[in-house]
Amino acid sequence: MTDRPKTPLLDRVTLPSDLKSLTDRQLRQVADELRAETISAVSVTGGHLGAGLGVVELTVALHAIFDAPRDKIIWDVGHQCYPHKILTGRRDRIRTLRTEGGLSGFTKRSESPYDPFGAAHSSTSISAALGFAVAADLGGDPGDAVAVIGDGAMSAGMAFEAMNNAGHLKKRLFVILNDNEMSIAPPTGALSSYLTRLYTGAPFQDLKAVAKGAVSFLPPPFQEGARRAKEMLKGMTIGGTLFEELGFSYVGPIDGHDLDQLLPVLRTVHDRAIGPMLIHVITKKGKGYAPAEAARDKGHATAKFDVLTGEQKKTPSNAPSYTKVFAQALIDQASRDDKIVAVTAAMPDGTGLNLFAERFPRRCFDVGIAEQHAVTFSAGMAAGGMKPFCTLYSTFLQRGYDQVVHDVAIQRLPVRFAIDRAGLVGADGATHAGAFDVAFLANLPGFVVMAAADEAELVHMVATAAAHDTGPIAFRFPRGDGVGVELPERGIPIEIGKGRIVQAGARVAILSFGTRLAEVMKAAECLAARGITPTVADARFAKPLDRDMILGLAARHEVLLTVEEGAVGGFGSHVAQLLADEGVFDAGLKYRSMVLPDIFIDQASPERMYEVAGMDAAQIEARVLAVLGVASVAKRA
Amino acid sequence: MTDRPKTPLLDRVTLPSDLKSLTDRQLRQVADELRAETISAVSVTGGHLGAGLGVVELTVALHAIFDAPRDKIIWDVGHQCYPHKILTGRRDRIRTLRTEGGLSGFTKRSESPYDPFGAAHSSTSISAALGFAVAADLGGDPGDAVAVIGDGAMSAGMAFEAMNNAGHLKKRLFVILNDNEMSIAPPTGALSSYLTRLYTGAPFQDLKAVAKGAVSFLPPPFQEGARRAKEMLKGMTIGGTLFEELGFSYVGPIDGHDLDQLLPVLRTVHDRAIGPMLIHVITKKGKGYAPAEAARDKGHATAKFDVLTGEQKKTPSNAPSYTKVFAQALIDQASRDDKIVAVTAAMPDGTGLNLFAERFPRRCFDVGIAEQHAVTFSAGMAAGGMKPFCTLYSTFLQRGYDQVVHDVAIQRLPVRFAIDRAGLVGADGATHAGAFDVAFLANLPGFVVMAAADEAELVHMVATAAAHDTGPIAFRFPRGDGVGVELPERGIPIEIGKGRIVQAGARVAILSFGTRLAEVMKAAECLAARGITPTVADARFAKPLDRDMILGLAARHEVLLTVEEGAVGGFGSHVAQLLADEGVFDAGLKYRSMVLPDIFIDQASPERMYEVAGMDAAQIEARVLAVLGVASVAKRA
Repeated sequence: MTDRPKTPLLDRVTLPSDLKSLTDRQLRQVADELRAETISAVSVTGGHLGAGLGVVELTVALHAIFDAPRDKIIWDVGHQCYPHKILTGRRDRIRTLRTEGGLSGFTKRSESPYDPFGAAHSSTSISAALGFAVAADLGGDPGDAVAVIGDGAMSAGMAFEAMNNAGHLKKRLFVILNDNEMSIAPPTGALSSYLTRLYTGAPFQDLKAVAKGAVSFLPPPFQEGARRAKEMLKGMTIGGTLFEELGFSYVGPIDGHDLDQLLPVLRTVHDRAIGPMLIHVITKKGKGYAPAEAARDKGHATAKFDVLTGEQKKTPSNAPSYTKVFAQALIDQASRDDKIVAVTAAMPDGTGLNLFAERFPRRCFDVGIAEQHAVTFSAGMAAGGMKPFCTLYSTFLQRGYDQVVHDVAIQRLPVRFAIDRAGLVGADGATHAGAFDVAFLANLPGFVVMAAADEAELVHMVATAAAHDTGPIAFRFPRGDGVGVELPERGIPIEIGKGRIVQAGARVAILSFGTRLAEVMKAAECLAARGITPTVADARFAKPLDRDMILGLAARHEVLLTVEEGAVGGFGSHVAQLLADEGVFDAGLKYRSMVLPDIFIDQASPERMYEVAGMDAAQIEARVLAVLGVASVAKRA
Repeated sequence: MTDRPKTPLLDRVTLPSDLKSLTDRQLRQVADELRAETISAVSVTGGHLGAGLGVVELTVALHAIFDAPRDKIIWDVGHQCYPHKILTGRRDRIRTLRTEGGLSGFTKRSESPYDPFGAAHSSTSISAALGFAVAADLGGDPGDAVAVIGDGAMSAGMAFEAMNNAGHLKKRLFVILNDNEMSIAPPTGALSSYLTRLYTGAPFQDLKAVAKGAVSFLPPPFQEGARRAKEMLKGMTIGGTLFEELGFSYVGPIDGHDLDQLLPVLRTVHDRAIGPMLIHVITKKGKGYAPAEAARDKGHATAKFDVLTGEQKKTPSNAPSYTKVFAQALIDQASRDDKIVAVTAAMPDGTGLNLFAERFPRRCFDVGIAEQHAVTFSAGMAAGGMKPFCTLYSTFLQRGYDQVVHDVAIQRLPVRFAIDRAGLVGADGATHAGAFDVAFLANLPGFVVMAAADEAELVHMVATAAAHDTGPIAFRFPRGDGVGVELPERGIPIEIGKGRIVQAGARVAILSFGTRLAEVMKAAECLAARGITPTVADARFAKPLDRDMILGLAARHEVLLTVEEGAVGGFGSHVAQLLADEGVFDAGLKYRSMVLPDIFIDQASPERMYEVAGMDAAQIEARVLAVLGVASVAKRA
């Protein structure tokens, strides 16, 4: 089932330098073997499959022509880098992708010198490459800089800012536009239509013939042949005005799966480019693996699978995912309120808004990879009388932070922020952790900030947000499946700023914010077995705090422990500020705050990541016992 | 000197509706009077002059043709809105601009229904306008949406994201590109060169003649005349491909100071537009006021001035500004280390990097209004072996927050963040307050976060940042002049994480982070007069904290008070977390944390804003006395 593919030529390639002596024909064979090896590896690990398969030939061509790690090849997002990892000394670990202690699913500086600039969020590669190019120019590390960026990532404002600056600075710089018409979802912006017009004007067959002709006369430079090659490339420029207006030379579009086009074109630009150059390459996400090509998402992200059938091996779950619960609750609200609209930024499936869009196509807006715009567009709609739910992952909301402050909070506009993937997320690792949203939202005047303790609470929080018309409101929930509680038929708005006592106890009060509540309850059970039955409360709100409940807990208990899935500066910090202001510390209170630790936690299962973070049930219990001065042996929950 | 100008026609205009009955000739007169009134008002208040003068005719034309407040006219940044305020019922308060209780220097929703979407940061207008357009389409507030955006603001990624989405959604929407080739500083990006090419191809004289011809046959619509007008407009489209590729219809360029062009063109597009429309208007910043036109910054921001001479009335200062001290310290470091480079985002003068650029032109990069790119470009240079100082205002760093997390912090790249305008800033008000940077930086693993207590400390912190090569480091300093301490000849790196005891005392310890130290010292003096001599410490670092110093202060004093120019979640929260973790609260400590209050504070003098914030010397003293249970009468310091 998962027999390793035969890869006789790839077996001789440990590092990119091993490609230099191969013929173009051999490089084609390497590419074929690399594709097979990539499919085999991901079938074992799961992960991002489609993107990698789309750049197999491009990866081979770049490493055959450029000189990494001296030359910096920067893969935007980085989820297409598995073939790159296989070619850059990491093949022996490729079947550890996205697992604890294994290779990252993205590029990562600490993993390899062949990853000069790590990624995971999109659209950073051109800025970084320009930084390398300028550094080389000023006496820093020498070498060329190459950014490989998808058409979806190119639609983000950040990429435009970088293009605008690169076109102005005029340094030698290569931007490979990997145009596969898919970011995670099908693209939606005007840029995408533009790109489609560019390449539908130029049939590949003709280009292929031209490009093949080029092989005979390349290299060397400064010959009649090179002049003709330059003309050929110019002839290929059938469009690209938009990029040329920004100061780039444009070449393309070329077939990114045809090394007979890729190799001569890249050799020519490598030998000839002076200023910034955009090479437009057309690829197919999932290329060469029928089940991926056939899938709606082109094999974007997959569980482990059977290579022959493509069948994915998913673990069945007893509870629905938070994402799905959110989507259904929002659909329910929207069915009774036609002012509710939803906005996301290239994550319709990941946020469940694909379901919302099916039901309310005119009221759902996927703005592309454009979080800044997503937030202010939502603010504009709120100012225009609508009730927008701006639905993003916690980590990507960081992209729109100034807009949250400046356009939403200062204007007190009732934008609803549905924040998915809050807390630690598992295989995607540190770059995707939703660690900071509570800290950066809860100190904004006028904001309401909630976290759902379970999926039933989430349903009520969607209702709460829908009903809250006087200012901005946010609610966060984690990746993954709920805890299995019964779902209410319909959400009922929670009173703003009201928490709930989950369990009454004595001596110790544990105040939870978010889905750590389940671990807190486990810890409480273990503590009860030792004769210490803690009071457990679900804060629900980091802002406004439930002052009465919190001050009451502080007054009636010896120990108060706050627990949250976020970094310092968030919920616990607001509680501490309240307790200090009220003079609660003056006479003594054993107050502790459990927050995510001051490290970026690498990928593992979410459970394991929380263990590393010191926030599982056993460690919550141990923390309480330590504060009480009771000896304990920390154990796994 | 500041006699009010004679404005007989303008005196009859209270609201935009009063313009509707005027002839085009009268509108020209209104524009002339409006310019005179704007100059007169700003001569009294100071503020943004050049931008407003550049849009006098455009303001008149928009309000004559569109129907505000039903139609939403959204001024990007909003600093060009003084003429708009004069025409929209606020003329009687125009001489209160930017003062406490007066009109905001920007557009502001709470100030007027004619300000449908406030601003102050740039490049938000298209997103907001699209939000209004979509809301109108879905049954929200009806009316057209018009965004007026400068060429500098258009270069920000956010504007591109909005254009990309608007071109896709195809709603009726007006974007007026106000092209004056100046954001705050002269523009630097490739987009700017593109715009210049657009209008250098089309001499105004010809256009003017064509446009004049149009007046005769406009309105009404649906006539032969209208058809010809459409052709005329099409004929004027000599470029604009870039915008057309993004799905916009492009009209222009037209002379933004010639109502004979503006009025017919705007009437035609108003009557005819179906989808998104970009109208390219060429204006001169500072137009019609010789001293502004002659100034290097075109009268961007000015103190009060004499209308006849243009001479500004600045209060002399005894101390250099923090900005200048920073710039000189950075130049000093860079003169001895050729790896130091500096990056800013359209703020060379405001950050002092203009001085750096004079000395090191090749090592200074103004990337335009593009904070996202600025941060990752800096990260790329750091990865390439350089020592970048990414120099931004606190409030604008919010624009690059995800890049700070994802590209800098996670990769531990030694980018130096020089954060100007930290804390409350005075006349620019809430939108420009630097309130959140400590909170959103200090919880990032591996970050070093400093605040200078005075200008001498700033010099040492520049040296500290230059020497810190193992990860990211930030230092913040306020707007305005230093306190007048002697400057060291050369900065000496401070040991990372080491604070300093400024004054030894007893019972009470005040731990200051940043320039509130001066107020803390005043408070300490008043307390000493009452027989309570507090210990005063300058924390210097919010991260890493000086644990020994802080725990020592806690152990040796009855009261510990932290003071900082930032919101909750920052320095004080990290101190509270440390104290809790160490069990310091268990036995009681009168701990208090003075942070910016949970409100957005409107413009006033910085001193007054800190008084409103409850953070001046008198209130610090009062807080200490209250904690000690000593009666006090709060008084002004």
